[in-house]
Amino acid sequence: MPRVISRLTLIGVGLIGGSLARALKRAGYCGEVVGTDTRTDVLQRAMTLQVIDRGESDVTRAVQGADVVILAVPVGATESVLRQIAPHIDEATIITDVGSVKGCVIAAAKNVFGTVPANFVPGHPIAGTENSGVEASFAELFDKRRVILTPTDTTSPAALKRVRAMWEQAGAECVEMSAEHHDEVLAATSHLPHLLAYTLVDTLVQMDASEEIFRFAAGGFRDFTRIAKSHPRMWRDICLANKQAILTMLKRFSADLETLSQMIEKDQGEDIESMFTRAKAARDRFRVE
Amino acid sequence: MPRVISRLTLIGVGLIGGSLARALKRAGYCGEVVGTDTRTDVLQRAMTLQVIDRGESDVTRAVQGADVVILAVPVGATESVLRQIAPHIDEATIITDVGSVKGCVIAAAKNVFGTVPANFVPGHPIAGTENSGVEASFAELFDKRRVILTPTDTTSPAALKRVRAMWEQAGAECVEMSAEHHDEVLAATSHLPHLLAYTLVDTLVQMDASEEIFRFAAGGFRDFTRIAKSHPRMWRDICLANKQAILTMLKRFSADLETLSQMIEKDQGEDIESMFTRAKAARDRFRVE
Repeated sequence: MPRVISRLTLIGVGLIGGSLARALKRAGYCGEVVGTDTRTDVLQRAMTLQVIDRGESDVTRAVQGADVVILAVPVGATESVLRQIAPHIDEATIITDVGSVKGCVIAAAKNVFGTVPANFVPGHPIAGTENSGVEASFAELFDKRRVILTPTDTTSPAALKRVRAMWEQAGAECVEMSAEHHDEVLAATSHLPHLLAYTLVDTLVQMDASEEIFRFAAGGFRDFTRIAKSHPRMWRDICLANKQAILTMLKRFSADLETLSQMIEKDQGEDIESMFTRAKAARDRFRVE
Repeated sequence: MPRVISRLTLIGVGLIGGSLARALKRAGYCGEVVGTDTRTDVLQRAMTLQVIDRGESDVTRAVQGADVVILAVPVGATESVLRQIAPHIDEATIITDVGSVKGCVIAAAKNVFGTVPANFVPGHPIAGTENSGVEASFAELFDKRRVILTPTDTTSPAALKRVRAMWEQAGAECVEMSAEHHDEVLAATSHLPHLLAYTLVDTLVQMDASEEIFRFAAGGFRDFTRIAKSHPRMWRDICLANKQAILTMLKRFSADLETLSQMIEKDQGEDIESMFTRAKAARDRFRVE
């Protein structure tokens, strides 16, 4: 087993941060877990749940003496957190994050440090649920999931190796790609579906018969809109941070939806069926554990 | 227990028809189940699975002597099926259907019979899965689900009562509303989400990096797009049959999605978060077993 993490500091003790702490404890891969969060009531609950060993309301104290610091906050908070901790971080301390957008995290690090520090490894576990908060965290969240790491030119191979080992101990497998590519892929597979789910629910909420409409919704609707239960602030930040890639996907989707509308308008049954058949075939090929 | 159905005839032995037969057998509420289907191989499989007792490839023979006939075919096939069986249906035989659009089913009955027959009860169980075919059928599909019945002015109270009793024996509860209202409600809760799921998958399929994109999709995407596995022909028929209500919903949704795009374009973080918060609150209130 690679060298264990003596002290892990979680900045943000929610679903992702909490699940990572649980997974690393399960693997016997970390000593002390220190947690810090702007919501101080969370720290007490996280200690009660034994997700963290120690809560620190002061982020600068929380990072002192840490081997590894995990930023697990909405991406919009990255820069201010980095700015707060920068003077208190030991050179040997590895910093990584779990944000759903990587370009903006790298930009934040450049803004704070001038250049992306060698010990900073941007990362994103492709895992989650529609629930948020430390109470929703569980050790198995990352089992067999992928973690995308987006190292920059200045990232040190040793830091990258350490973060990779950590995720593997948490049950995940790591892949590397550029931050730009990551942000495009996630705009398609994750960001766009979330925006569609939020918008659908909001469209129905605004209808006159909205209460009745929800009463006659069934299982398909439930699954389709589950992701609209996700954390509004986190998703606001993602929209702002991955603006261009998201707008590109929204344009593509809207154009395709308009094409389908036209086919319905013109009673083009064959074209509609071809499109549905193609989509079904692609979806049938898709497998997620 | 109300008087059992001595002979039930299923026209279309798929997920819905097969599950209804299983549920009524579970309740001891029907004697012989006769099945007919344009795909004759289905009948043999349905007999092997003991979903039906007898398969008849000739629909006119299948309906003879039936107490109750269930139309469980894509809605676009309703008129031709009614035309075929009309000369062979006994006056005492009750006809009902399970189609996802009710206005077109009533129009089909009027076209065939001149007026909607007193023994014809249009219905729609709000239940289903993304799977199709008799192999996917199961007796519990309708447990605690709602069935919407849309009787017309000419529907006999006795026929309505009989169909209601049948669905209750299958585990469901029945509600009544006009066909027009049904079609509007379902356009919002079921038809629109299916079209969004098909379109999203198809948008991604058309992208250059489509294989890679699907590789990095996770649980949220899986749930969101599950309904894109649904039966393409059935959904083509629904689009054509509920055209106006669907086009109205597509327009509303597209306008709301455009509003969100504008908010992202203009970095209106507060407005984005308000919208997500409102949608999340509505979705959190929504409960389906």
